[in-house]
Amino acid sequence: MSCTVGKVIRCRAAVAWEAGKPLVIEEVEVAPPQAMEVRVKILFTALCHTDVYFWEAKGQTPVFPRIFGHEASGIVESVGEGVTELKPGDHVLPVFTGECKDCRHCKSEESNLCDLLRINTDRGVMLNDGQSRFSINGKPIYHFVGTSTFSEYTVIHVGCLAKINPAAPLDKVCILSCGVSTGLGATLNVAKPAKGSTVAIFGLGAVGLSAAEGARIAGASRIIGVDLNPKRFHEAKKFGVTDFLNPKDYDKPVQEVIAEMTDGGVDRSVECTGNIHAMISAFECVHDGWGVAVLVGVPSKDDAFKSHPMNFLNERTLKGTFFGNYKPRTDLPSVVEMYMRKELELEKFITHEVTLSNINKAFDYMLKGESLRCIIRMD
Amino acid sequence: MSCTVGKVIRCRAAVAWEAGKPLVIEEVEVAPPQAMEVRVKILFTALCHTDVYFWEAKGQTPVFPRIFGHEASGIVESVGEGVTELKPGDHVLPVFTGECKDCRHCKSEESNLCDLLRINTDRGVMLNDGQSRFSINGKPIYHFVGTSTFSEYTVIHVGCLAKINPAAPLDKVCILSCGVSTGLGATLNVAKPAKGSTVAIFGLGAVGLSAAEGARIAGASRIIGVDLNPKRFHEAKKFGVTDFLNPKDYDKPVQEVIAEMTDGGVDRSVECTGNIHAMISAFECVHDGWGVAVLVGVPSKDDAFKSHPMNFLNERTLKGTFFGNYKPRTDLPSVVEMYMRKELELEKFITHEVTLSNINKAFDYMLKGESLRCIIRMD
Repeated sequence: MSCTVGKVIRCRAAVAWEAGKPLVIEEVEVAPPQAMEVRVKILFTALCHTDVYFWEAKGQTPVFPRIFGHEASGIVESVGEGVTELKPGDHVLPVFTGECKDCRHCKSEESNLCDLLRINTDRGVMLNDGQSRFSINGKPIYHFVGTSTFSEYTVIHVGCLAKINPAAPLDKVCILSCGVSTGLGATLNVAKPAKGSTVAIFGLGAVGLSAAEGARIAGASRIIGVDLNPKRFHEAKKFGVTDFLNPKDYDKPVQEVIAEMTDGGVDRSVECTGNIHAMISAFECVHDGWGVAVLVGVPSKDDAFKSHPMNFLNERTLKGTFFGNYKPRTDLPSVVEMYMRKELELEKFITHEVTLSNINKAFDYMLKGESLRCIIRMD
Repeated sequence: MSCTVGKVIRCRAAVAWEAGKPLVIEEVEVAPPQAMEVRVKILFTALCHTDVYFWEAKGQTPVFPRIFGHEASGIVESVGEGVTELKPGDHVLPVFTGECKDCRHCKSEESNLCDLLRINTDRGVMLNDGQSRFSINGKPIYHFVGTSTFSEYTVIHVGCLAKINPAAPLDKVCILSCGVSTGLGATLNVAKPAKGSTVAIFGLGAVGLSAAEGARIAGASRIIGVDLNPKRFHEAKKFGVTDFLNPKDYDKPVQEVIAEMTDGGVDRSVECTGNIHAMISAFECVHDGWGVAVLVGVPSKDDAFKSHPMNFLNERTLKGTFFGNYKPRTDLPSVVEMYMRKELELEKFITHEVTLSNINKAFDYMLKGESLRCIIRMD
């Protein structure tokens, strides 16, 4: 048993003291895990748009000082009271949303919106006692979505940890804990394209390319990538994208262009931008009779999805998904196995790598649109 | 072989000479069926809202003089060239939409929106030669949705006829050729409620009650009927409706009332009014994580379905359906069998019966909201 069990661990973490200001590497104290909590040694973490979004805190509730980070991999250091599914040494992926296995959602075969552990971006504390496990000189540093992986050690509710195959390379599978699974699952679990079908992907960032990767794995015959940035098109070919559409190149709605290209519309579409116009296009570009459109991107507060109801009555389906409909604990281990069997290719998502000391570079890469995923190495 | 084969048949039909004016029983000439057509002796027909809607022709293209009627049962009198699936004496249900068995939609397992024979309310002639088979003194009387069942004999494309069990009572199963199948299929084929689930039905007319009947057959534990007319509630109990909601009785949106009644929303909803506000309520009243809402009612031309995209992202699904997703020729015979096995109860839909001579009474019953289905007996 590790000599740190039951004790406060002092370690390095990247602390966001203020909205939009560079993170600062600090020595933080990480308290031992309480009931149903697990303390995890993070080995690799990646930067996701959601971290940047809440770090910028334009319009969101500002919760500072805070330790961001939610796409990561690590090893269990110690477990709190009542934790029976995990033990020190287990390899885990922290997830920003959880699975209590006890609520109506967890018991439903269809939902992954756990009542207890559903994502909460405003809460900066642990559920058990409403306190933070992080501090500097006794002053609390707040958590982010229950994971806070920009720290060498972090404390996470057991329901937000997926136990994975210990043979899986943690520097690769860390990206399965958010973006890649979100896009992949949107296609494989929700859109479910049949072999040989046509799929349109709106937005060719990491989530959209993961959705394309899902379509490639499903055997789609044609994958149409839609993006306003023509630079993304070259990269997208690696992910199975066969056709590229820049809505700016046309003087009619992109759904009409897609309908002309595909004899009436695609079989499936996946919207990964969060832009309301893209959402409407993604819905209206699917074929009548059987088309299914899936919304993934998170919209603005005041957006309204709007379409003529006849578009539905002509037998189109519109669905939304959250985290690719994966239940974190139940389903994520099998996504890791897809990678281990070489069905799912993760390497092509990883464009950059930095050490924790250089974490702000990862923010630069993302803000400049240069990276898909930048891995942050904790050692 | 009947002595009428190949000859013009003179028979009685109810002709609509002008929009909104009472039908007139006339002697009409019915030409023999051409290639891929079938002449059918109609025994029973029923009146559906769609007949009334196009007879009133408020805003629709007026096509007059016309023989309405599309919900019916009959017996094949003779068949045209190329018709191999039907022969004189076969019992059939005419359907306002068809199944050519050859187009992409017919070949798709999901769609019933046949490219060749999809409903066309503006066309008053047959596909084969662009002419009508009905005339009075040589002047054409137009068809309606390819069926025109308010006539003792009519000519119908073979793709719009379902061959059914000859043991089925034609005075009952005639109502399966439109409204009842539309509502029933919306629930059984599209919403697919699991046993024990909760279902909300918007609109308790014949289609809505058929949707409720579908929920009853599926074993729903709670069926919430929503209607502005409190008189409909008593009748609805026969169709399995357990709870009644009149939106007028509440000062908040009915979707909020339903969410409170059901711990967050119903598992499934089916919208059968065509009112845009009901459509939005039907979508927003389903539970996050797994809720599925199905649109059946036909909206107005200028309506817009509008909802916040987060309602989708929280894992709700919105689908539309047409004719309950039944493929007329392939699937309708099995719906007749459901009735024959006494799983589906049709008698409770039939509230009135008149002879062809009194067909205008059927219009009165419907316009006054007194009837669910009025059977018109042709003999």
